[in-house]
Amino acid sequence: MPSISTKGRAMPASPIRKLVPYAEAARAKGRTVYHLNIGQPDIPTPQVALDAIRNFDNSVIEYSHSAGFESYRMKLAQYYRGLDERITHEHILVTTGGSEALLFGLMATLNEGDEVIIPEPFYANYASFCLASGASIVPVTSTIEQGFALPSMDAFEQAIGPKTKAIIICNPANPTGYLYTRAELERLRELVLRHDLFLFADEVYREFVYDGRDYLSTLSLEGLDEHLILVDSVSKRFSMCGVRIGAMVTRNQQVYQTVMKFAQARLSPPTLGQVASEAAMDVPDSYFEEVNREYVHRRDVMHSLLMEIPGVIAPKPGGAFYLVAALPVEDAEDFCAWMLSEFAYENQTVMLAPAAGFYSTPGLGQNQVRIAYVLEEDALRKAMLCLKEGLNAYAMLKSKARAAVNG
Amino acid sequence: MPSISTKGRAMPASPIRKLVPYAEAARAKGRTVYHLNIGQPDIPTPQVALDAIRNFDNSVIEYSHSAGFESYRMKLAQYYRGLDERITHEHILVTTGGSEALLFGLMATLNEGDEVIIPEPFYANYASFCLASGASIVPVTSTIEQGFALPSMDAFEQAIGPKTKAIIICNPANPTGYLYTRAELERLRELVLRHDLFLFADEVYREFVYDGRDYLSTLSLEGLDEHLILVDSVSKRFSMCGVRIGAMVTRNQQVYQTVMKFAQARLSPPTLGQVASEAAMDVPDSYFEEVNREYVHRRDVMHSLLMEIPGVIAPKPGGAFYLVAALPVEDAEDFCAWMLSEFAYENQTVMLAPAAGFYSTPGLGQNQVRIAYVLEEDALRKAMLCLKEGLNAYAMLKSKARAAVNG
Repeated sequence: MPSISTKGRAMPASPIRKLVPYAEAARAKGRTVYHLNIGQPDIPTPQVALDAIRNFDNSVIEYSHSAGFESYRMKLAQYYRGLDERITHEHILVTTGGSEALLFGLMATLNEGDEVIIPEPFYANYASFCLASGASIVPVTSTIEQGFALPSMDAFEQAIGPKTKAIIICNPANPTGYLYTRAELERLRELVLRHDLFLFADEVYREFVYDGRDYLSTLSLEGLDEHLILVDSVSKRFSMCGVRIGAMVTRNQQVYQTVMKFAQARLSPPTLGQVASEAAMDVPDSYFEEVNREYVHRRDVMHSLLMEIPGVIAPKPGGAFYLVAALPVEDAEDFCAWMLSEFAYENQTVMLAPAAGFYSTPGLGQNQVRIAYVLEEDALRKAMLCLKEGLNAYAMLKSKARAAVNG
Repeated sequence: MPSISTKGRAMPASPIRKLVPYAEAARAKGRTVYHLNIGQPDIPTPQVALDAIRNFDNSVIEYSHSAGFESYRMKLAQYYRGLDERITHEHILVTTGGSEALLFGLMATLNEGDEVIIPEPFYANYASFCLASGASIVPVTSTIEQGFALPSMDAFEQAIGPKTKAIIICNPANPTGYLYTRAELERLRELVLRHDLFLFADEVYREFVYDGRDYLSTLSLEGLDEHLILVDSVSKRFSMCGVRIGAMVTRNQQVYQTVMKFAQARLSPPTLGQVASEAAMDVPDSYFEEVNREYVHRRDVMHSLLMEIPGVIAPKPGGAFYLVAALPVEDAEDFCAWMLSEFAYENQTVMLAPAAGFYSTPGLGQNQVRIAYVLEEDALRKAMLCLKEGLNAYAMLKSKARAAVNG
């Protein structure tokens, strides 16, 4: 039998999805499982986007241009001009989700053996895309004690070597919900320029910024024209993850033209998703205000309930709809699996994402989980009650096991 | 400025789309351009698929499973069981177009420096996907004189070396329309087994088989369970290229699990496209019969008109909706560009795809074009009249130029 490729073997399995069989088994037992493990929001897709799909009246569902419909790119350009007034549709390439934007950007810029610096914990699929491009990841660690703030410039400087080619950031961050400050972004800007690096900025949670803080897009940083590759998506913005529409935005013409060749090879991004995405651009600001109010409320509920659980540490996130919490357990993956396979409280349980999979440094984040607050208040309250009761039961079980060993 | 990657620089620009600016200029002059350069059929998408989109009534457009909706995979499995009765939904992974199925399959199996054998001329984007995976292409040449039949086993044996890992075929073939015989496929099967290679079979034109011939899928060949990676798509099958839904089918569990990791990294294939694709599975056989009748008619019209043009050689295709023709010109790319930029007959002209871009061996196919017979009879007749008149005018121009040089 012919063999699998080296990168195929090295490709990590999704840490978010690997507990899925346990969840399926729990549901098969008739248990309610609260899914706080994935970023699939329950917020309705804007009506105007759904209507556009329902009113689709072409008789053939044709390819679009490889860079996406020009009409959609024009509308996107108008939106991005709010962040950098020089953006035109010629700086925008519509992609199949933010995933493809990042993958194509990495493929266009990284060689086998190049190094990419990423503050950890980071969105686990970055590792897959780097691997696919042949590059390796050098993590710089942010800590729960410092609320997952940007690591010091010293830590970055120590990580940068002759093979360093790029930095990837996510702002607001998945999985931590951390929102970078202007000072942090300015420091990153200087670093990128000093070392002549690419900066990949994943800003797919741009609309989810809380507590009245301003959002500073990397597009509005000075002097990064040749360095910045922005990754965007409508998935979270308009709560339509399934349309698979994202965008790459860059003023670097060489990068744009190279990514365009990858885009031509896959022909076009999804036509129906573009129809929905273009229509969604007409959503009024009040849509985002309402959605943000809802998420702030969920965050507050979630965070205060977590703080009531003894031994839990969880920095309050400033954006996105995730947080990373340290639990009073040794091995969060074991705990999460146990919650699904063994535990139930009033025939309910909760599914969380073990956070070790978001760290590149082995051994980090073992006691941490990522929680996505993507459900309504009532479900969140029930889920947190399950978590609290589950932690109690798990602690008793562990202490019995220790007693048995010691006795 | 940080530099572009080696593979980014090496990535070929689409040979099909590179004349687009000339076509845009022709249209800007008010000329009608018959597009026989791309495989975008004008056949209506089945009503049942369009209706499914219009009736989409979820309030959130969510991610699907990374392998695609189970309900869709079950329906697909039923369909593929007509080709191999052992296929279940667990052998099927729904992808974002056939492109992604091939790309993921190659990424899962090929290492930097591995070699892939492809009969040329071949679908140009295979080169892009091989490049992305780090492998290089070793072509074996099929000739217009032999109607683009499978090259001899001797030619394959000569091309196979210690780094050979896979063969890619397309059946019926894009760009030639050639339909492999049972004997040819059996020879390929033996070759693949003898050298322990992967066989990537792109069968996206499976439904387009003419003249009453049976279609033999690679799925029905014996003993290829560990070797065969089938690439499929609804794009041409149901004339809905824009939904971006394809599939990878393999009984090799290691390949399946590895491709699944790439699939998880990109989250899910498009949801709306899957809704349309699943609905389209209910299309009756009469749909394909009608479509095939139309294509056979178009092929016959196209081919007989081509045969009336002096100096044109064009094997009659047995499937798909392309043919490759040798024209009485030295440089088909120059001729195609000239047709768009300089020529018009009754204010109309035709856009063809220069075929050199479908060959991997430099210098081959210089006088050939690929013609997609994807328009109605009337448009095809007008397009062929333009071609005939254009070839006349171009020949006169060239002979005048030669006379001027000689005089």
